[in-house]
Amino acid sequence: MVTEVKTTIDGVRAEIRSELADYLAGQRTYLTSIASELVPVCDALDEFLLDGGKRLRPLFAYAGLMASGAKPTPEIIRAISSLELLQACALIHDDLMDRSDTRRGKPAIHRHFENLHQSSAMNGLATQFGEAAAVLLGDLALVWSDQMLNTSGIPTESLLAAHLIHDEMRVELMAGQYLDVREAGEKTYSAERSLRIARYKSGKYTIERPLHIGAVIGKPGKGEHGDLLDALSRYGLPLGEAFQLRDDLLGIFGDPDVTGKPAGDDLREGKRTVLIAITLETLPEADREELLAHLGQPSIEPAKIEELRALIKSSGAVDKVESLIEKLTNDSLTAIEHPAIHPTSREFLTYIALSAVKRSA
Amino acid sequence: MVTEVKTTIDGVRAEIRSELADYLAGQRTYLTSIASELVPVCDALDEFLLDGGKRLRPLFAYAGLMASGAKPTPEIIRAISSLELLQACALIHDDLMDRSDTRRGKPAIHRHFENLHQSSAMNGLATQFGEAAAVLLGDLALVWSDQMLNTSGIPTESLLAAHLIHDEMRVELMAGQYLDVREAGEKTYSAERSLRIARYKSGKYTIERPLHIGAVIGKPGKGEHGDLLDALSRYGLPLGEAFQLRDDLLGIFGDPDVTGKPAGDDLREGKRTVLIAITLETLPEADREELLAHLGQPSIEPAKIEELRALIKSSGAVDKVESLIEKLTNDSLTAIEHPAIHPTSREFLTYIALSAVKRSA
Repeated sequence: MVTEVKTTIDGVRAEIRSELADYLAGQRTYLTSIASELVPVCDALDEFLLDGGKRLRPLFAYAGLMASGAKPTPEIIRAISSLELLQACALIHDDLMDRSDTRRGKPAIHRHFENLHQSSAMNGLATQFGEAAAVLLGDLALVWSDQMLNTSGIPTESLLAAHLIHDEMRVELMAGQYLDVREAGEKTYSAERSLRIARYKSGKYTIERPLHIGAVIGKPGKGEHGDLLDALSRYGLPLGEAFQLRDDLLGIFGDPDVTGKPAGDDLREGKRTVLIAITLETLPEADREELLAHLGQPSIEPAKIEELRALIKSSGAVDKVESLIEKLTNDSLTAIEHPAIHPTSREFLTYIALSAVKRSA
Repeated sequence: MVTEVKTTIDGVRAEIRSELADYLAGQRTYLTSIASELVPVCDALDEFLLDGGKRLRPLFAYAGLMASGAKPTPEIIRAISSLELLQACALIHDDLMDRSDTRRGKPAIHRHFENLHQSSAMNGLATQFGEAAAVLLGDLALVWSDQMLNTSGIPTESLLAAHLIHDEMRVELMAGQYLDVREAGEKTYSAERSLRIARYKSGKYTIERPLHIGAVIGKPGKGEHGDLLDALSRYGLPLGEAFQLRDDLLGIFGDPDVTGKPAGDDLREGKRTVLIAITLETLPEADREELLAHLGQPSIEPAKIEELRALIKSSGAVDKVESLIEKLTNDSLTAIEHPAIHPTSREFLTYIALSAVKRSA
């Protein structure tokens, strides 16, 4: 049965990729008819969207659709694939704001265009060009996500119902991103504030809202889906928090080959994660000072990363976060049994929940 | 009669402001329920949207609506007011990319948040925080523009027809912005390339597409509006180019009290305008070298600005650009007579065309 779900997911991922490829090819024809100078924009976004990515948000939208009891159509797959373009905007702008050099093992978009500026010996500052290109490619991806949704061909009633949630989701995303950026300016770490950010950035944006979008596309009639959306929130919100906590662990202990980010990247970045906040609350004074002295230093040596990892483990924070992930995952799995959730979708919901919080990636 | 049109415009501007204020107040309630840390975001966007602004894009959408013969409703005013939020995104991101310090005589958004970081003695780099805030506030304004349009309450048929144009307009905007940023990296100035950018950034984004959006909101049925959209393009595209050329002149010769930008700002920025490209094509070698040596130098002295202005005038480029504006304006005004354009709208279309290209601001 698990093999069947896995085959379904692989199939949906392939359809998502194909819909994105098709949409992007149409846009390439359009943009290059405006000016050949737009070819590098198309190339960069093609590569960003088509090479890799777990397709998490479209898959949760697919799960929401199944939970409604509706059947996927090519138009629906196209509509939910648009969430990948929104996520591309979030990642491109995120990397720019964090000054991250790489994404999935390749240069981040601002670095890619900075390199392009240099290799083409263009006029002006390469860094400024790279940053401007990242602002605009993120904006373009955001606008494309809308256009792909609006032209997907799903019934009008589904589209209008999806818009209400889609718009709210994007406001929540930007609010969560701002709180995240602002958190880096706080003098102290706080598990509570970091958990609130996780709730908006992952609980709502990555999981709950995509589930809701899929559900209302499947059952657009008002009054029909109230219980279903509630049940999906009970499944999705704890799952999103668990997912973010797993991400916190991977950001410090993850394998660079799997995460596509350098080892211990969150330490170098000084990211305000729940894991670090709990660690700091628990460590003895001297160890806390030691950790704080290195957090956010871009050039921490690999040997020091190992020491800091040991320190974090010694605080008991890793065990606490693992227990929290387990509790949240159990809460999420329990919600799958709600009667509003279509029985044929339960196996799928269980499988993707466990995949989202699993240890390796 | 002109007084009547002016009164109408003042009334529409007041309605636009009121719809924006109402929408922003609702969003403030929502965002501050998420976290009080979002208050500065709401404050900054309130100020940006409600203090000033010519409301050019909503006014052209209003003109398109009138050209269709339809009557404005509060829902339609709300829908077209959303274009101000899109424009806020464009300006906030533009100022960030250009490193402009001011907008309408106040600190640009990235500078405002940089100052906030400093005055609150936050952790980390103030410039990085300012830049990140500008990325996110621009993104939020873009997302809000969609939400304001989607929840405006206009009939579904109008909304769906507006989406098609709105999505295309935003793609064109981002493409135009990219070409503009890229142009700054070119080794040479080109009147032809600068004119192409003007066509996308001003012709289409500022004027033609807003006209089309208003027109299809008024007459959403396919087949009904073909001729009308063509006629509006013939009115809007030359007008947009004339508007951009006027902006080129104001960017160098404009009064800072009126433009809200420092005197000769385009010279300091080295902006690749049609005006400068024509100047460089015409000036004798020595004068050209003199101008090129100063273009794009952020610290040109006021006296030198005066000298460069005289140089540009001496080349004859100002006269050429004025003639071009006159020709384009005449083409635009001629198109107003097209039979597809509702007769009662002609006076309004004439008035706003002349306002857009007039000499003072």
